[in-house]
Amino acid sequence: MTQDGRIDFLYLNEQDMIDAGVLNMQECINVMEDVFGILSTEDYRMGGRENNSHGMVVSFPDEPEHKSMPVNGPDRRFCAMPAYLGGEYRIAGCKWYGSNLDNKDKNLPRSILTMNLNDADTGAPLAFMSANLLSAWRTGAIPGVGVRYLAKPDSKVVAVLGAGAIGSSTAIALLLEAKNAEVFKIYDVDESQSQILKEDLEEKFPNVSIQIVYSIEDAVRETDILNLATSGEANPKIESEWIKPGALIIGSSSGNFDPDFVINNVRLVVDNWKMYEEVKYEDVYPYNTLEMGVLGRLFLDWIHEDRMTSDIIMNVGDIIKGNVHARENDDDIVIFALGGQPLYDIAWGYKVYQNALEKDIGTKLNLWETAFQAR
Amino acid sequence: MTQDGRIDFLYLNEQDMIDAGVLNMQECINVMEDVFGILSTEDYRMGGRENNSHGMVVSFPDEPEHKSMPVNGPDRRFCAMPAYLGGEYRIAGCKWYGSNLDNKDKNLPRSILTMNLNDADTGAPLAFMSANLLSAWRTGAIPGVGVRYLAKPDSKVVAVLGAGAIGSSTAIALLLEAKNAEVFKIYDVDESQSQILKEDLEEKFPNVSIQIVYSIEDAVRETDILNLATSGEANPKIESEWIKPGALIIGSSSGNFDPDFVINNVRLVVDNWKMYEEVKYEDVYPYNTLEMGVLGRLFLDWIHEDRMTSDIIMNVGDIIKGNVHARENDDDIVIFALGGQPLYDIAWGYKVYQNALEKDIGTKLNLWETAFQAR
Repeated sequence: MTQDGRIDFLYLNEQDMIDAGVLNMQECINVMEDVFGILSTEDYRMGGRENNSHGMVVSFPDEPEHKSMPVNGPDRRFCAMPAYLGGEYRIAGCKWYGSNLDNKDKNLPRSILTMNLNDADTGAPLAFMSANLLSAWRTGAIPGVGVRYLAKPDSKVVAVLGAGAIGSSTAIALLLEAKNAEVFKIYDVDESQSQILKEDLEEKFPNVSIQIVYSIEDAVRETDILNLATSGEANPKIESEWIKPGALIIGSSSGNFDPDFVINNVRLVVDNWKMYEEVKYEDVYPYNTLEMGVLGRLFLDWIHEDRMTSDIIMNVGDIIKGNVHARENDDDIVIFALGGQPLYDIAWGYKVYQNALEKDIGTKLNLWETAFQAR
Repeated sequence: MTQDGRIDFLYLNEQDMIDAGVLNMQECINVMEDVFGILSTEDYRMGGRENNSHGMVVSFPDEPEHKSMPVNGPDRRFCAMPAYLGGEYRIAGCKWYGSNLDNKDKNLPRSILTMNLNDADTGAPLAFMSANLLSAWRTGAIPGVGVRYLAKPDSKVVAVLGAGAIGSSTAIALLLEAKNAEVFKIYDVDESQSQILKEDLEEKFPNVSIQIVYSIEDAVRETDILNLATSGEANPKIESEWIKPGALIIGSSSGNFDPDFVINNVRLVVDNWKMYEEVKYEDVYPYNTLEMGVLGRLFLDWIHEDRMTSDIIMNVGDIIKGNVHARENDDDIVIFALGGQPLYDIAWGYKVYQNALEKDIGTKLNLWETAFQAR
């Protein structure tokens, strides 16, 4: 921005984002830990009635009256995720995406995402960016923070359910943080997905034994750190007796657990419980659905069903600060449920944008020389 | 989009938008009438619990705990407005903006807006565009539809309260549709604004007497068609006895009316009452505030206060279709309250985008050749 009100901003396509470091998982994990720090000081604003909304979803009916209207289905939605992030960032932004499982038939990712970064004071655009990798990497990085603070340090066996975009980026984060990992198990209904991830991880982590497994049970048993990253409609059934004592289960997506077991035997951690409380204004019970599989929403359902109360739920930020402890006993199982928030995208987007500016990456675009209606 | 999943899209800056016809008010009015047709068939989806949300606002506290956080104030917010529009459009989109009154000190408009248009099926971006004029023109055009269907055909005196971005575009629409207009009055607290608008209108409408007035009373008295387009904190006091029998009052912003007079003597029309009902989930009473001055929210407040019920409120689409009549008697005063919806932006944005494609206007951008995670 200049004196005459001229506004320029930076466009970063997917290759630009890669060149500017969006795939630097270790840095991304550190930035996500940073965001949890800002979360705990409440130096942020999101949308919604209590300023803690995940975002605004545009969904479709199961049986549209109009034939041309898109039809509801797993992960079929559009979603706008606006927020302001304080701390050292102090910018606003909005992630915007459309999702459709059928995209895979068109050689396209399930979701196609873009991100706006904006000056917190004027609202002027700073950057418009391809956000698929931004989103996948920040979503992958948060489980890395989970491993850092919620897994037992001697964790040797790590596993992912789901080897799609999220599972793949998460796998990198898990292995970066699980310093003593010896075995990494991959389960996906589509074995070719597992194979692609296996090859990628073998290159990146030559000292870990990367194994494809062929059942959910094999993925869960004997596993110290388990990550769920399946698409909405999968909702994998996890039998309680499969879960190893002391295990960490990270829910990037949802899962089908025995409520009684989880409520009575598992320590529950979320990224930001206030965000889930906001859901009660935005949606109706049941909150966890095949169209929108989010483990924290399952907790909301259990609270709605009077199976549990919210006071057993911990925020990861409080654990990082040392205010509360993830485990009381060594054998305590911990579930870390992730909801996703635009704050993560803004933080990582801002870092990548700063890198791009430094390295002169991207396409400079002009919004206007002087606004037509500058008054 | 091609077989290999390559995605390109079009960037349109403000000058591109002008070149592609965003300022064609007559076409814009016709497109807005189109949207009301689609609204009445319910071939659309917005966000929110009942799929009728205006959008998601990120607001700021009156007294932030963190000194660096933006402070609440009139029109100080960010807002994401996502939707799907059916009919001949069949696309999705999201308008995103930040607003700050202080922008005027920086030679910037109060709000800075951008717009995404996306393929309804894949979510792929079709266009990213400067949306200040898009938004101002669609907001101006809707009162044009109001004049077409809600004003008395012999209306001779037209007036605007507020000569900012919205008031200025609205003025053009009002005069295009008020075919028998002889006098056009402009009131603004800042006379230089009135002067700029006066000169613009004198050029465009040489047969109409364009007059600057210096009080709200002068603007309202003897006026057949009155438009309110002030910034949030102005909330102009409109005395009931100033209002001419048979007048049409269009609320692009809010106003300070005597509730008893309005409820008992005025016919109330809105663009989409369902959108206001959604506000009850999103916000708390009082709904109409200086930070967010919207006349339809004033109706919500009056309903909340048990002064009136919603059954006296008409949707303009039903009047256009002839299902209900704006007036029962010739002297009935009509208020047309506008809330704004992303559907308008998508419709007008799509038309301008189509023009740009035809005329080869804008900058082609590539999102990716093949997505890094196309699986």
